[in-house]
Amino acid sequence: MNYGKITEETLVIFQKIVSKENVSVDQESLEKYSYDETPHGLRHCPDVVIKPENTRQVSDILKLVNKHRIPVTFRGQGTGLANGAVPLYGGVVMSFEKMNKIAVDEDNLMAEVEAGTVLFDLRQEVEKRGLFYPADPGEKTSTMGGNVATNAGGMNCVKYGKVRDYVLGLEIVLSSGKILMLGGKTVKRSSGYELMHLIIGSEGTLAAVTKVIIKLIKLPKRFITLYIPFDEANNAVKSVSKILKKRITPTAMEFVEREVILETEKQTGKKMPHNESEAYLIIRIDGDDDTILFEEGEKIANICLENGALDVFFADSKERQHRIWDVRSLFYDGVVKNKKNIEIIDTVIPPSKIADYMRTAKKIADAHGIKIIGFGHAGDGNIHLHPIGDGLSQKEWYRKHKMVMKELYESSVALGGTISGEHGIGVSKKEYLQIGLDENQISLMREIKKIFDPNIILNPGKIFDME
Amino acid sequence: MNYGKITEETLVIFQKIVSKENVSVDQESLEKYSYDETPHGLRHCPDVVIKPENTRQVSDILKLVNKHRIPVTFRGQGTGLANGAVPLYGGVVMSFEKMNKIAVDEDNLMAEVEAGTVLFDLRQEVEKRGLFYPADPGEKTSTMGGNVATNAGGMNCVKYGKVRDYVLGLEIVLSSGKILMLGGKTVKRSSGYELMHLIIGSEGTLAAVTKVIIKLIKLPKRFITLYIPFDEANNAVKSVSKILKKRITPTAMEFVEREVILETEKQTGKKMPHNESEAYLIIRIDGDDDTILFEEGEKIANICLENGALDVFFADSKERQHRIWDVRSLFYDGVVKNKKNIEIIDTVIPPSKIADYMRTAKKIADAHGIKIIGFGHAGDGNIHLHPIGDGLSQKEWYRKHKMVMKELYESSVALGGTISGEHGIGVSKKEYLQIGLDENQISLMREIKKIFDPNIILNPGKIFDME
Repeated sequence: MNYGKITEETLVIFQKIVSKENVSVDQESLEKYSYDETPHGLRHCPDVVIKPENTRQVSDILKLVNKHRIPVTFRGQGTGLANGAVPLYGGVVMSFEKMNKIAVDEDNLMAEVEAGTVLFDLRQEVEKRGLFYPADPGEKTSTMGGNVATNAGGMNCVKYGKVRDYVLGLEIVLSSGKILMLGGKTVKRSSGYELMHLIIGSEGTLAAVTKVIIKLIKLPKRFITLYIPFDEANNAVKSVSKILKKRITPTAMEFVEREVILETEKQTGKKMPHNESEAYLIIRIDGDDDTILFEEGEKIANICLENGALDVFFADSKERQHRIWDVRSLFYDGVVKNKKNIEIIDTVIPPSKIADYMRTAKKIADAHGIKIIGFGHAGDGNIHLHPIGDGLSQKEWYRKHKMVMKELYESSVALGGTISGEHGIGVSKKEYLQIGLDENQISLMREIKKIFDPNIILNPGKIFDME
Repeated sequence: MNYGKITEETLVIFQKIVSKENVSVDQESLEKYSYDETPHGLRHCPDVVIKPENTRQVSDILKLVNKHRIPVTFRGQGTGLANGAVPLYGGVVMSFEKMNKIAVDEDNLMAEVEAGTVLFDLRQEVEKRGLFYPADPGEKTSTMGGNVATNAGGMNCVKYGKVRDYVLGLEIVLSSGKILMLGGKTVKRSSGYELMHLIIGSEGTLAAVTKVIIKLIKLPKRFITLYIPFDEANNAVKSVSKILKKRITPTAMEFVEREVILETEKQTGKKMPHNESEAYLIIRIDGDDDTILFEEGEKIANICLENGALDVFFADSKERQHRIWDVRSLFYDGVVKNKKNIEIIDTVIPPSKIADYMRTAKKIADAHGIKIIGFGHAGDGNIHLHPIGDGLSQKEWYRKHKMVMKELYESSVALGGTISGEHGIGVSKKEYLQIGLDENQISLMREIKKIFDPNIILNPGKIFDME
C-alpha cells in the first residue's frame, strides 16, 4: 500500500488535538504498542501512539490521517489473540485506554460505556447495583471496544450469548471523521440496514468504536460451580451434549484436559480441587432459588456420572467457586507461556459435534506427530485446541503447524462450523478465511470495506487483503 | 427507473424453471399479490406471480430477472404493515408460500426453516417437542422470511428479544443468482463481517432469504397471565417502568386503552374479562416452578396496585389465558378495520420514557384535533399509536396525519427512540427515515444496496430511494 508518512508537522497537529502528553513517539512506547497477546505474535512498531480522551478528538485525528492517508490501528488493552491490534503498516496506534467512562442507566437496565473501559471495571460497576452484564470473555482485562471488535464470546455463551447479543447502540467515527450514532437505548429496531451489527466483529477495519450502549439484566442471586473429573476426554465432551439434549442450560460448560491443569498449576502455583483425571468439566449454573438450583446441579451431576464422570465436586461458596474460576482464567497463560511451538485454534462447531471434532483433531495431531491439547467453551462448541510441537525445530514446526491448522479448519467447516468463534481473523487466520467463507462472501466484504474506508487506512491488512 | 419488461419468452422460461402451475398472470392472482395489510395501503399489480419450490429455482429466476433488469418483490403471507411487499414497479412477485419445510434439530436445539414457513406452524412443530421459539410477532400467520425481512418483534421482547436474536444462519440468494450460506449452526462466530445481520431487517432489498437457521430454547413449564385494569392510562405505563426498575422481567407486558378493547369486542364478538376501565396491562410471566412464578405474579400485582391499578385478574389455566391473548391478537383488526382515516405508528423508545411519550402524543393529537389510541408492547417501549381522524374529510385527514406522523417521529427520536421498532420502513415511512437516521447513515446504506443489487431490481422503492 502506498501510505502517507507522519511528518513533524502532523505530529504537532496531533499534539494540538489530544495534548502533548497523549502523543508518544519514544521507542519504548512504540514497542509497547507493537504487538498483542497472540502466542509468538507479530511485532510491528507504529510511528506514533495517540491516546484520545473523547470522541471529538478521535474524529479530528481521523480527519487528519485520512487526508494524508496514514494508517491507523485501534487498540484496547492489546489482549487479542489473532494479531488484530498489530499496526502492520505502521502509522498511528490509537489507544482507547483514556476513554473509560461508564454510565449505568438503572431505569432502562442499560449502560453507556466508553470503548476503553476494561471488562473487570464494568462488571464491578454494574454488579454493585445488582445488575449483570452476562457476556463473559475469558480475558477480564480486555476492553469493551476490543470485545465489540471481535464479537467476543467467553464462558457464559451457553445460557447468555455473546457480546453482540448485549449491544444496543454504538457511537462510531468513520474514516472521514464523521461521528455516527448507530442504534441507541431501544431494545428493538427495524429502521434501515443494521450498520451497527456490521461494525460489531469488524475488528477495527470499518470505523472507530468510541462508545457502546449495552443491555444489562438482573444479577442472579446465586451461582454454583460443579467440577467434574472424567477418565476419558471423550466422555466429558459427550456429557456436554447429553446435558444440552436434556434441555438443561447451564451458565457455562468448560472443558479442560489434565495436562492444561498441571501446566497451569505449575506456572501459577494455584491449585484446582483435583488434578488426577484425564479431563474435566467445569460447569456453572445460576438462579434465584436454591432448591431449583441444587436440583439442576444434581441432574447435571447424574448425567455426568452416567457418562463416565468419576466424581462431582460441588462448589457453592463464593470463595470456592472463585478459586476454581480463577485457575480457569489462567489456563491460557498456563498452556501458552514458555512454549516455543504452539498455536491457538478458535474453531466453533455445532455443539452436538464436539466429540466428533475432538476425535478428528487427535487423529490429525497423530498423523503429523504433534500434540493437541484443549480447553474451553464446550457448551457452545468452541473448545480452544492448542497444537504443540515440543522438540520440533522451528522449520519443522512451521511446516507442520500450517498443515495442522488447515486440516483443523477444514474439519470444523465440514462439521458445519467455522474458523473463528470469538478471537477474530486478524492476521493469524487471514490465509484460512476462504476455508470458512465462500469467495463471494469475502468479495462482498471487500466492497463494504471500500465504502466505509475508501483510503484503506483503518487497521489495514486484517481479516482479508484488499488486493 | 428504467426496468425491463416481461415478454412471452421470459414467461416460458419462468414456467420451465418452476413449472406452469407456479407461474400466474391472471388478473385475480395479480390483484391478490398487489397489496399487504397496511391500513388503506398501496396497491400495485405485479406482471407475474412466481412460486418457487426450492432454492435452486429462486436462483434461476433471479439470474433471469437480473439479466433483463426486471424488478422482483419477495413475499411471505403479505401481513406487513408498511407497504413493504407491494411491487411498486410491477415485475415479479416471488411468493415463498410453497417453501415451508421445517427441520427441528433436537441435538442442537435449533431448527432449519424455509422462508415461507408460517409462524403458527413453526411454533406447533417445536412446542410438541417441548421446545420454544420465543420470538413472538403478533401476526401468527406471518412467515419466517417476512419476520427476518423486518426483524420482527412482538410480545415477548421484554424477556426474550426479537427475531434477530434467534437467527443463527441464513441461506440467501443474491440478485446475481448466487446462493450463499451466511452463518450456520454455531452459536458464536467471529469470522469476517456479519453479512447475515445486514440481511436481517433489510426488507428484501439486498437478497432473497430462502432458509433460516434458528435457535430454540426449552419450553417453559408454565405461563401465567395477569389482566390489570387502570383508571388512568398514565398509571398503566408508569407501572411498566416500575416493574422493570424492580428488575422483574415478565415474558410480555402489553398496554391497551379501553376503546381498543371495546372496538375489538364489537368487531369480533369476543370478550376480555373486563372492559370498564380507561386502560389495561396484559402481562405474561413464565417459568418452571409454580411457587416462584406465583410470587413473581404477586410482586407485579402489588406494584400495579400501588400505582393506580383497580384490580388484578390472574389467569393461570391455559384456556383463560388463551382467551385473553386471542382477543389481544385481534386488537389490530378491531382498531383498524372499518376506519376510514387511520394510521399505525411503530415508534420505539427507551422503556423508561413511555409515560413521557404517551403524554406528548396526546398533546400532538389535541393540537391537531384528532384522536390517538394506543396498544402494544409497553415493556419494550414499542406501543403502537393509532392516529384516527373520525369525521375528517380525506383532504383534511391527509394534511393532518402527515403533520401528526412527523411530530410523533420527531418526539420519539428526541426521547432517544427511532421511527420503526418492528414493522420496518417499507414505503410508508420512507419519507420519515431521515428523522431517525443521519444522512450519512442513509448514504452508507445506499452504497451497500448498490453492492448487493447493482441493477436495483430487489424490492425497489423500499426503505429509501436510490435517486
